[in-house]
Amino acid sequence: MNAPPDLPVLVRRFLAEDLGRGDITSETTVDRSARASGRFVAREVLVVSGLEAARAVFGEVDSEVRFTALVDEGETAREKVVLAQVEGPARSILAAERVALNLLMRLCGVATLTRRYVEAVEGTGAAITDTRKTTPGLRALEKAAVRAGGGTNHRSGLDDGVLIKDNHLTLAGGVTEAVRRARTGVPHLLKVEVEVEDLEQLREALDTGADAILLDNMTPEEVRSAVELVRRRDPGVLIEVSGGIDLETVRSYAGAGPDLISVGALTHSAPAADIALEVEPC
Amino acid sequence: MNAPPDLPVLVRRFLAEDLGRGDITSETTVDRSARASGRFVAREVLVVSGLEAARAVFGEVDSEVRFTALVDEGETAREKVVLAQVEGPARSILAAERVALNLLMRLCGVATLTRRYVEAVEGTGAAITDTRKTTPGLRALEKAAVRAGGGTNHRSGLDDGVLIKDNHLTLAGGVTEAVRRARTGVPHLLKVEVEVEDLEQLREALDTGADAILLDNMTPEEVRSAVELVRRRDPGVLIEVSGGIDLETVRSYAGAGPDLISVGALTHSAPAADIALEVEPC
Amino acid sequence: MNAPPDLPVLVRRFLAEDLGRGDITSETTVDRSARASGRFVAREVLVVSGLEAARAVFGEVDSEVRFTALVDEGETAREKVVLAQVEGPARSILAAERVALNLLMRLCGVATLTRRYVEAVEGTGAAITDTRKTTPGLRALEKAAVRAGGGTNHRSGLDDGVLIKDNHLTLAGGVTEAVRRARTGVPHLLKVEVEVEDLEQLREALDTGADAILLDNMTPEEVRSAVELVRRRDPGVLIEVSGGIDLETVRSYAGAGPDLISVGALTHSAPAADIALEVEPC
Amino acid sequence: MNAPPDLPVLVRRFLAEDLGRGDITSETTVDRSARASGRFVAREVLVVSGLEAARAVFGEVDSEVRFTALVDEGETAREKVVLAQVEGPARSILAAERVALNLLMRLCGVATLTRRYVEAVEGTGAAITDTRKTTPGLRALEKAAVRAGGGTNHRSGLDDGVLIKDNHLTLAGGVTEAVRRARTGVPHLLKVEVEVEDLEQLREALDTGADAILLDNMTPEEVRSAVELVRRRDPGVLIEVSGGIDLETVRSYAGAGPDLISVGALTHSAPAADIALEVEPC
Amino acid sequence: MNAPPDLPVLVRRFLAEDLGRGDITSETTVDRSARASGRFVAREVLVVSGLEAARAVFGEVDSEVRFTALVDEGETAREKVVLAQVEGPARSILAAERVALNLLMRLCGVATLTRRYVEAVEGTGAAITDTRKTTPGLRALEKAAVRAGGGTNHRSGLDDGVLIKDNHLTLAGGVTEAVRRARTGVPHLLKVEVEVEDLEQLREALDTGADAILLDNMTPEEVRSAVELVRRRDPGVLIEVSGGIDLETVRSYAGAGPDLISVGALTHSAPAADIALEVEPC
Amino acid sequence: MNAPPDLPVLVRRFLAEDLGRGDITSETTVDRSARASGRFVAREVLVVSGLEAARAVFGEVDSEVRFTALVDEGETAREKVVLAQVEGPARSILAAERVALNLLMRLCGVATLTRRYVEAVEGTGAAITDTRKTTPGLRALEKAAVRAGGGTNHRSGLDDGVLIKDNHLTLAGGVTEAVRRARTGVPHLLKVEVEVEDLEQLREALDTGADAILLDNMTPEEVRSAVELVRRRDPGVLIEVSGGIDLETVRSYAGAGPDLISVGALTHSAPAADIALEVEPC
Repeated sequence: MNAPPDLPVLVRRFLAEDLGRGDITSETTVDRSARASGRFVAREVLVVSGLEAARAVFGEVDSEVRFTALVDEGETAREKVVLAQVEGPARSILAAERVALNLLMRLCGVATLTRRYVEAVEGTGAAITDTRKTTPGLRALEKAAVRAGGGTNHRSGLDDGVLIKDNHLTLAGGVTEAVRRARTGVPHLLKVEVEVEDLEQLREALDTGADAILLDNMTPEEVRSAVELVRRRDPGVLIEVSGGIDLETVRSYAGAGPDLISVGALTHSAPAADIALEVEPC
Repeated sequence: MNAPPDLPVLVRRFLAEDLGRGDITSETTVDRSARASGRFVAREVLVVSGLEAARAVFGEVDSEVRFTALVDEGETAREKVVLAQVEGPARSILAAERVALNLLMRLCGVATLTRRYVEAVEGTGAAITDTRKTTPGLRALEKAAVRAGGGTNHRSGLDDGVLIKDNHLTLAGGVTEAVRRARTGVPHLLKVEVEVEDLEQLREALDTGADAILLDNMTPEEVRSAVELVRRRDPGVLIEVSGGIDLETVRSYAGAGPDLISVGALTHSAPAADIALEVEPC
Repeated sequence: MNAPPDLPVLVRRFLAEDLGRGDITSETTVDRSARASGRFVAREVLVVSGLEAARAVFGEVDSEVRFTALVDEGETAREKVVLAQVEGPARSILAAERVALNLLMRLCGVATLTRRYVEAVEGTGAAITDTRKTTPGLRALEKAAVRAGGGTNHRSGLDDGVLIKDNHLTLAGGVTEAVRRARTGVPHLLKVEVEVEDLEQLREALDTGADAILLDNMTPEEVRSAVELVRRRDPGVLIEVSGGIDLETVRSYAGAGPDLISVGALTHSAPAADIALEVEPC
Repeated sequence: MNAPPDLPVLVRRFLAEDLGRGDITSETTVDRSARASGRFVAREVLVVSGLEAARAVFGEVDSEVRFTALVDEGETAREKVVLAQVEGPARSILAAERVALNLLMRLCGVATLTRRYVEAVEGTGAAITDTRKTTPGLRALEKAAVRAGGGTNHRSGLDDGVLIKDNHLTLAGGVTEAVRRARTGVPHLLKVEVEVEDLEQLREALDTGADAILLDNMTPEEVRSAVELVRRRDPGVLIEVSGGIDLETVRSYAGAGPDLISVGALTHSAPAADIALEVEPC
Repeated sequence: MNAPPDLPVLVRRFLAEDLGRGDITSETTVDRSARASGRFVAREVLVVSGLEAARAVFGEVDSEVRFTALVDEGETAREKVVLAQVEGPARSILAAERVALNLLMRLCGVATLTRRYVEAVEGTGAAITDTRKTTPGLRALEKAAVRAGGGTNHRSGLDDGVLIKDNHLTLAGGVTEAVRRARTGVPHLLKVEVEVEDLEQLREALDTGADAILLDNMTPEEVRSAVELVRRRDPGVLIEVSGGIDLETVRSYAGAGPDLISVGALTHSAPAADIALEVEPC
Repeated sequence: MNAPPDLPVLVRRFLAEDLGRGDITSETTVDRSARASGRFVAREVLVVSGLEAARAVFGEVDSEVRFTALVDEGETAREKVVLAQVEGPARSILAAERVALNLLMRLCGVATLTRRYVEAVEGTGAAITDTRKTTPGLRALEKAAVRAGGGTNHRSGLDDGVLIKDNHLTLAGGVTEAVRRARTGVPHLLKVEVEVEDLEQLREALDTGADAILLDNMTPEEVRSAVELVRRRDPGVLIEVSGGIDLETVRSYAGAGPDLISVGALTHSAPAADIALEVEPC
């Protein structure tokens, strides 16, 4: 999928945050005419994501900087692999360096962690999907990183999908009423998903024609029973599982037969990947 | 220190990212007139940061939502402690929930990790300080979280301090020339810090009148020698250490006598703290 | 459904467009301390929409202006009915007048035209739905006006639903491939709708598991045949009809059994409703 | 006259409204490398306006799209005439299509309706002029469309002309006082126009030195008497007529001798012109 | 006339420029709970302008600060007169102080210089008017200051009046053609002014029906001859004089009989008025 | 030092202020295809600053305009020297003219006045520095003009340096406490400067380890005593003098031995330099 339409705007803000009134160290110590080249080097094994964002950072600072990606989004890079090269005015490269690295390290971190989950469920038929537990301001980029890691995306926001959670159920007066209201009020191209806590709620959700079911905080065994019930009743209904699933437990959940396993940690707790920018005069 | 002056702007963007064209689930399933209350509950031990940001999120969505903080910035909260309460129109609380939680979980995560580093060096006299390796768009909030955890802040951006790194040295033609240029060109209220790799560069930096020295990627022993040299030559010069220092090694570095130890992981790799918002009708 | 989250921003822009550097006529001819009241009066029968937008206009100009709606969104107002009252500083009321009227007249116009279509298909079970043929900048408001008129909403934008049109089919190499690609790439809460031109494409779309079918530019008889085919094959699939349908032909299409009839004219060609603001000193 | 200076900003907003987080249908079904061409075809007779706006839409989405206008602003195009061609990356053309069409259809609609009024008064010496009853956010474009149709423009906003209406007269205490205040307070390059309801007010307006007179809601005969009075008293004073004038009555008003006839319907009730974009791979 | 509609936006930008990431001196040295009061004191005789702008600055920083103006716009204040008082949270007063003072000192400076010109031409019937030679970003405020000083305003921008200068004449091919084009193309409520260099151009301008004449860089005697010519030919035509007129020469120009004398120095070279903010705890 | 990072944004705003809805004079009188060239000519001796800003103005209006600077930032230009040339579409040059001139005249004015102060203190070792008394919205440009004139820059804003003034001292309870608080709370790369009124406060400031001292409103003799005290106690401490110093008194202050003399008038009261743009067809 393409870069988010507002990537230039985002990048401009991130640069403004770091540059403030200007990079006074480079402006005073480095000649205006000096040129430099730089190499983004992986310092550990990682899955690549965010090179388009890094390219946008340099492009925003100075259209004279040439950025060349050497690996593809979603590719696994070993330690010491050069991910991309830049070349251009030295001051511009130094001004863009930190923002580009901060984005790249975070996005490769998300892609790398996602890949580990995806590999953990390989062969089970379950997809790993993200959540809305993303870094404020970086959602589209982090969701692209999840895809780079082999995961799929859940809703992009509160407006492009209906997910009726326990809070909604309480406030709406139950599953049947909540689903009925959602069906009536939302555009016809949006599915309705309901979070259920037990088999009773599950049956009610199926009776009301929910398009997708979220099984939250169940054991793998409970998931298995729920999956069987759904498949028997309506094979077209999607089944998602969530709730404190980690790399150790994810495969046992996947084995229980759901379509999707959503993992908040992909985006809220992925450690940054270790990447350096090595600069030299040219 | 106060909240960043642009907090309302930030929060508006974060909400726009999540809300898009509106929270269609709540708008269709929850009555416009319904009211609710909610409690932010720690689900693990954590150091508190970000409650002002969470307050701003609810305030931005709906000025009728009342947000009450129950703990202080920088306080340690045990599991199950209620950090804050909200009360108001149910739709507004649900619309703000995810953004508030995403901020709070991340900022408490940063504060909690910082606290662990600060405790690790207790009694040594060294301060734990952050870097510019922050999440793009969240720098001021993450730097406040570092302070909440007991750390200190390094530069806020490229414009409010001079830090001459190896790249600048190469491009400027050495320590002496780089420091001289910086001295001449920057406002008199900004100090000049130089990164050095060995004792020779260190001596040159001291000769040129650098205000602060950054010792990068040295062993604790090398740090100790460098510190002795600096203290002997000019006791007014600040000494900072950095480079791959983690919770296991930080105390040995602190024991070598620097003023500051900077740790990128405080902001780029802190896992989110586990916090839930429990909502009920009222 | 609620007002669009960015209504204040929209209204501010509309006011800036009209006010420019200020309302020089009122500022020079009317005393700063003068107060006035005004009544929005329907000058023809109309269906009400846009009062919240009008309220926002006055609120943005001057928080001292009191705006009181006297009818409800979606209500039919006869000629001479007072829709709303305003009271406050005279200059502020005059500065806001034109923008408020321009919005109200257009939105009531859309709601009124929609109501005529809805009434034309009454009892057939078909819903009248809008399109993306809205006024640039006013989509959310116009879509709310369609709902006020009794219609339903299609996609809000290119990002919250998949509608594969003839152009996509040509470029993707046919129905089967296009639907397969969409299924794989988009979040699981979004349905996939395909536009088909004949029964052959229709069968292919059903074979590939499309969630909804758009029958474009067919006669009512062709629609009837297509509907029968779909209902026989998969009763869960939604059927939408579009293409040059007007108030004279809409009922015969509705009688052919589709779920939805989409009408671009609701938003691109609705004449403004006639509404006046009668102001007097107070 | 040139395109409005803020056209790129407007177009960016309109695209953001339609694209949201991206065109998920094209991004999933159409190859990133696919190229296409398209032709904007008139499906009814129309007067052309808005091609520069359409060009800006494609340019904003992707600078690689080549847009070629084949007719001129203000030209009459018959059915099936190709107004413009586009060529470039298929995804970009599809992403821009709807916004470009929505603008073009509306602006050609305004130009076409204006032309009908202009033709209706041909030979009378009266000009057809627009009002501030424009679509919020589209004023400059709609006013250009009025010019394309052969009409002239009234004020662009509340700040670039003085038009004292009945409300101002009431609040200022009469014609003499209102005109005097306006004369004193506004820059010397702006004329002062006064709306009058009867001959008495008209005489007062002439006595106070108004530069232009607006005769509102009069019959053609009343207009004729008023015109005679004005011409006799001061041939330099401009005379404008307004108030519920339609295509049937406009010529009789024009025959009464005014300089200008202003028609709100030009912009608030022009039906969209029917235009299609026919896309094919290339 | 009212404050510019975008005053809050302006003030927010000016504060952002000064505050950056925050007022670190006050935030570290002054208690969050401390309150203070302050008095704006004239340190020389001055004409007042800009108090509404100053009020907006404090209001933007903190709605709890109470700002009380003690003198009126346009009033002359002697040395030591208190122009306004503020009271509220000490940190907020200190954060707003500099921006408020910078605006106030500049705007009082403009008003004071304008008053000197106005007094210099007293009794001659000529008005002192400003130009577009204003400080970028401050035009509306500086034009209000000119009014406060007793002057009148020329165009607010290139869009609200037609002033055909020598450059236009050269490029359009002479006075007659230029005026004809302008007449045809601009809205009927805008007057057309032409700059002339000699009597020949002046006669041509009068022949083509220009509404106003700008006599540039003439001697008082030349102005007198031109004025006589114009008055004889068309007493309704406005006459403006400009070109290096200063406080010493302005009265002799005024005596030559023009309607307006425009002086760029009012806004481009007025020295700041001397004003202090005296703060104390409370 | 480089142009401010937000120069394009600034320039866009300044143009919007002047252009409003468009340059109606040029658009109606000058052919769209006409080309012109122009020369910026000094009409008095001046020190050059602001050519990059002027270039940005033309570039923002029309990328086809070619702008060629003929002198350098900081250079002294005699009367009649051509500072820069432009060439391109005539309408674009006319649309940009006023904003470019307004910036250039002001910035050359600041540079020229600064140069006079710098020359007045030549040989004394004291630097001339600016203050935060800049034109709101133009700080970075005016500070660059000060550098062009040979001055140095004080703080860029409230966030990049600590300057404890009398107000802070009062509110914090004295010099010792204020300096201690600042030391603890601000990043380690920022120096702490304190304003003192007498020798007692000066001693206290030195005792608490202030990095810089501001001597406000002292006589040259008092400054001399203070300088001697500081040099004796701590030769590393910077000494700044301020308070109503003008071109007549500045040398006697400089002779008293301070490092810096700050002068608000450099930016708040510099008269505009006289510069013309001479345009001709080409």
